[in-house]
Amino acid sequence: MSQPSITEVRARFIAQPGEPFDLSARDSGDRALFEDKDDTKDGLTEDGKAIDQLQNLLYANGKRSVLVVLQGMDTAGKSGTIKSVFAYTTPLGMQVKAFKAPSKEELAHDYLWRVHQAVPKRGKIGIFDRSHYEDVLVVKVREFAPAEDIEQRYEQINQFEKHLVENGTVVLKFMLHVGYEEQGIRLRQRLMEGHKYWKFNPQDLEDRKLWPQFMSAYETMVQRCSTEHAPWYVIPSDSRKRRNAAIARIVRGALEELDLEWPLQLHHPDDFDIG
Amino acid sequence: MSQPSITEVRARFIAQPGEPFDLSARDSGDRALFEDKDDTKDGLTEDGKAIDQLQNLLYANGKRSVLVVLQGMDTAGKSGTIKSVFAYTTPLGMQVKAFKAPSKEELAHDYLWRVHQAVPKRGKIGIFDRSHYEDVLVVKVREFAPAEDIEQRYEQINQFEKHLVENGTVVLKFMLHVGYEEQGIRLRQRLMEGHKYWKFNPQDLEDRKLWPQFMSAYETMVQRCSTEHAPWYVIPSDSRKRRNAAIARIVRGALEELDLEWPLQLHHPDDFDIG
Repeated sequence: MSQPSITEVRARFIAQPGEPFDLSARDSGDRALFEDKDDTKDGLTEDGKAIDQLQNLLYANGKRSVLVVLQGMDTAGKSGTIKSVFAYTTPLGMQVKAFKAPSKEELAHDYLWRVHQAVPKRGKIGIFDRSHYEDVLVVKVREFAPAEDIEQRYEQINQFEKHLVENGTVVLKFMLHVGYEEQGIRLRQRLMEGHKYWKFNPQDLEDRKLWPQFMSAYETMVQRCSTEHAPWYVIPSDSRKRRNAAIARIVRGALEELDLEWPLQLHHPDDFDIG
Repeated sequence: MSQPSITEVRARFIAQPGEPFDLSARDSGDRALFEDKDDTKDGLTEDGKAIDQLQNLLYANGKRSVLVVLQGMDTAGKSGTIKSVFAYTTPLGMQVKAFKAPSKEELAHDYLWRVHQAVPKRGKIGIFDRSHYEDVLVVKVREFAPAEDIEQRYEQINQFEKHLVENGTVVLKFMLHVGYEEQGIRLRQRLMEGHKYWKFNPQDLEDRKLWPQFMSAYETMVQRCSTEHAPWYVIPSDSRKRRNAAIARIVRGALEELDLEWPLQLHHPDDFDIG
């Protein structure tokens, strides 16, 4: 089985902090690292099992946590990524938060208030299905907040994430980059298939009409919030399997890099009267 | 592949509401329904995949939720059950809550306060790893609350669960019944194996010394809180595979019985200008 190295995957998909970012130079159909379908599938399975083991270690160690942020246009595959990359991880080891339109209570606070509440505990992998980045995406495109407020948010978000990182959380951010054509195909599928129809929301078509504005907001987001402490990875997402495989490689790599140790065995059964 | 029917599994393990319950008559090593190991394993896989599909339907339908309550002595396999029975269920579809010793904030409220906050949203399967039943188990055995308070709790819990059921939540309660000998074997394993050692807590040995008192508290709990709306199932748990297979059958059965429908397809791609 031939799988690209974690270093290769990172290097290809990272938005290099401090460098200009051009979204149009990123191909949502890129298959260069994952040419063979079967190898890709086998690699994903292997990485998924490794992530499960590494999450056990994360929990046993109890000092660090991992936050996976998923952003992407409708149908880009946020739910599918969660299901596939963490197929082998126990639900007990995860904290998944899907961010919807904010409630009145949430709107009565600053936009990071609800986000901070949802960050993962030590020992857990947290997943954000959408995130605080909606506050510089849909909020920007639809002008739900004044432009000058939004302008401040990029740096606020960078500082917030820096705080999390300095306090022991690894922050991994993935933009699921799906093409306009592929989104059209997937929206049609949702409308045609009985078991997918419920995912269809006419609002998605309204967002689709604003595709260029959304792409521009995404580009600015990546450009301004890809930092050394929490870089953005822009993942080609026209192929579901390759998208999942790329993300699994990067998640596994981040967990391995923590280089955690199992707690020392301080006792032996003979130390106790187990009966 | 031969698998016991859901009806058979329920009938064998239920604590019949309104009837006397004798825990000593339940064999923690019972294998009668799941004799063959391979059949048991295949059945669990099949049920796990069905539960995943049914959870999708639960979410799409959006009107009901399922709460799975797991109680058992240390090493009985609460974590293992979660990992195995929901191996195919997406983390997005679940809400897992592990109840630990209450915080000061939690102790400043009645004991169901933190429990009510953790019940699953519509569309989700919630798992309680320990639960409000700790308030009639460890709290009773260790006398953390006055006896007359604990005495009131059985009926309070029944009423609380009735409220949940009447409001659309299916409540499934499983006592993972592990034998004293088997617990001893598992505690020794934890102490011997580097990847399990972190699960060892000397407190578990203190609870083990009070085994008869705990068994008596479990017996009373099942007797008084196995109700028509939320019966207790007492699952033989000396064999992990059989325990998982039995619980998966019952969870699948409960989801199938909801008899949910996929939302109607009200639109066709041609209704829209998808572009």
